[in-house]
Amino acid sequence: MAGSRPVLAVDVGGTKLAAGLVESAGRVLSWTQVPTPVGLDAEQMWRTLDALITDILNGGRVTPTELAGCGCGCGGPMEWPSGLVSPLNIPAWRRFPLRTRLTERLGGIPVRVHNDAICMVAAEHWRGAGRGRDNVLGMVVSTGVGGGLVLDGRLIKGASGNAGHIGHVVVDPDTGPLCSCGGRGCAEAIARGPALVAWAQAEGWRPDQEDATAKDLATDGALGHPIGLAAMRRAGRALGIAIASATSLCDLEVVSVGGGLSQAGPLLFDPLEEALRAHARLAFTRQVRVVPATLGQSAGLVGAAALIFAADRYWHGD
Amino acid sequence: MAGSRPVLAVDVGGTKLAAGLVESAGRVLSWTQVPTPVGLDAEQMWRTLDALITDILNGGRVTPTELAGCGCGCGGPMEWPSGLVSPLNIPAWRRFPLRTRLTERLGGIPVRVHNDAICMVAAEHWRGAGRGRDNVLGMVVSTGVGGGLVLDGRLIKGASGNAGHIGHVVVDPDTGPLCSCGGRGCAEAIARGPALVAWAQAEGWRPDQEDATAKDLATDGALGHPIGLAAMRRAGRALGIAIASATSLCDLEVVSVGGGLSQAGPLLFDPLEEALRAHARLAFTRQVRVVPATLGQSAGLVGAAALIFAADRYWHGD
Repeated sequence: MAGSRPVLAVDVGGTKLAAGLVESAGRVLSWTQVPTPVGLDAEQMWRTLDALITDILNGGRVTPTELAGCGCGCGGPMEWPSGLVSPLNIPAWRRFPLRTRLTERLGGIPVRVHNDAICMVAAEHWRGAGRGRDNVLGMVVSTGVGGGLVLDGRLIKGASGNAGHIGHVVVDPDTGPLCSCGGRGCAEAIARGPALVAWAQAEGWRPDQEDATAKDLATDGALGHPIGLAAMRRAGRALGIAIASATSLCDLEVVSVGGGLSQAGPLLFDPLEEALRAHARLAFTRQVRVVPATLGQSAGLVGAAALIFAADRYWHGD
Repeated sequence: MAGSRPVLAVDVGGTKLAAGLVESAGRVLSWTQVPTPVGLDAEQMWRTLDALITDILNGGRVTPTELAGCGCGCGGPMEWPSGLVSPLNIPAWRRFPLRTRLTERLGGIPVRVHNDAICMVAAEHWRGAGRGRDNVLGMVVSTGVGGGLVLDGRLIKGASGNAGHIGHVVVDPDTGPLCSCGGRGCAEAIARGPALVAWAQAEGWRPDQEDATAKDLATDGALGHPIGLAAMRRAGRALGIAIASATSLCDLEVVSVGGGLSQAGPLLFDPLEEALRAHARLAFTRQVRVVPATLGQSAGLVGAAALIFAADRYWHGD
């Protein structure tokens, strides 16, 4: 290939598996994806990913030795930096040695595996909504509420590689719902899609289809359904309070919000802003801006590539 | 002087002005302090500090050229790194050019001025309760609730030098008291000393003296007074929830708690732990330890010295 060598970027999620070639400016040259298979064992799951990698390399007429490396985002939790992954939504993989297997598959080029939420914030900081800013929280609001933290221009690792868990910032300690973590009133316990759906149904929402999602709820809200509107307000408020707390603690400039629920637009962002502005009242916290994530579907691949192309900022492991 | 050159450390607070000589291992060789004068103008205040510096240099038989530099902690807010200070509790100084004046006074040696809460966490991380840990929140619970943040082994600056404001993490957004920042339910609005006293008086506490403080309230609590006990529980719970949120977001290892109220001991720390453990339920957040700050009165001077001796970790300015 002409020019500098591309990175093989891989994104392993509960919904889809994706692979792509990304060049050093962060542009996705080509990519392919398949729905995440269900009911497979660990090796069958690996072979699915392996085939996807073969497709993208052959399609791009690249051999592994022509790559700058391989970056991979994967659903958490994982042991980092060893890359033993146990994605919540991929039961087939429990402590699966993804980093080692990718390294073997690719003949020893540099391979780096990180949490998918971390890749998302790396992407938004490197080439998206947080570009040019040194203090960015990247959030993913979807089945869960995840995130990653860039402070003073560097991705923050924390004690165990878990910094950025905005979903477990407490926003309603007394009357909030129980959270899957065992606590009460975490932002995630209120604002995650399934929690919103459960809340709406308890309030009397009767969706057309049986397995309705938060997306359907947002659609109903956009059509004026009062429970749909109230559910988005409820989520927006919880997120706004969590962002206010994060801004006070971390002196953030930009918060990018991605994930399925962020597509609800003003239904979510307006009450989010209202709660944020009510609680972020210090001179420095008033400066924070909340913006939709700009890289959309490609954020996972772009962020995975950043683990190789901008390792000084986004990779602190060996 | 024999050995490596000491730092002149200066601590400017609303209660006292202190100056000391600190050697490179963090030991305070000598120090002196005076109560912060009230009713002075900006130049009179400077002359008080200037005299203190003269005393400590002459007492140690050191000339400015024999110093490794001067580190100074000062009450916030300030413009950083220029060191134009406007300490809330020293009305005489508004945008006072403390860094420039110290530089002129000391003949051009390196002078660095930072927020006193930042110096506190630098001290605890460098030579105190957080020593050897890479992810530390240092808190000061007193007239306000302040703090500073060390993540991945480096002091975090944030967008405007204000990272670490744990006092404005929201712990009771619905029914909490209004905060001086304009928000509602900040940890500081509940747990700062004067707020506890006001709450206790509203609950029927009748202290012996008119200008009773949170220290008196804690003393009454230690003697079994139910309102004193309830006030410490109230503060501990608010701090515990804020620490749980901070731990989820920043993946902390150690939280050191200093300041006057921390001297209440188990009356404060037991309910703090209880609330923290109720909300920090993820595997990684359960690992966090909350410890009393260990450097006590000298933390301000030790942290100011760290701005010079360990500038790679605690000073990112020019």
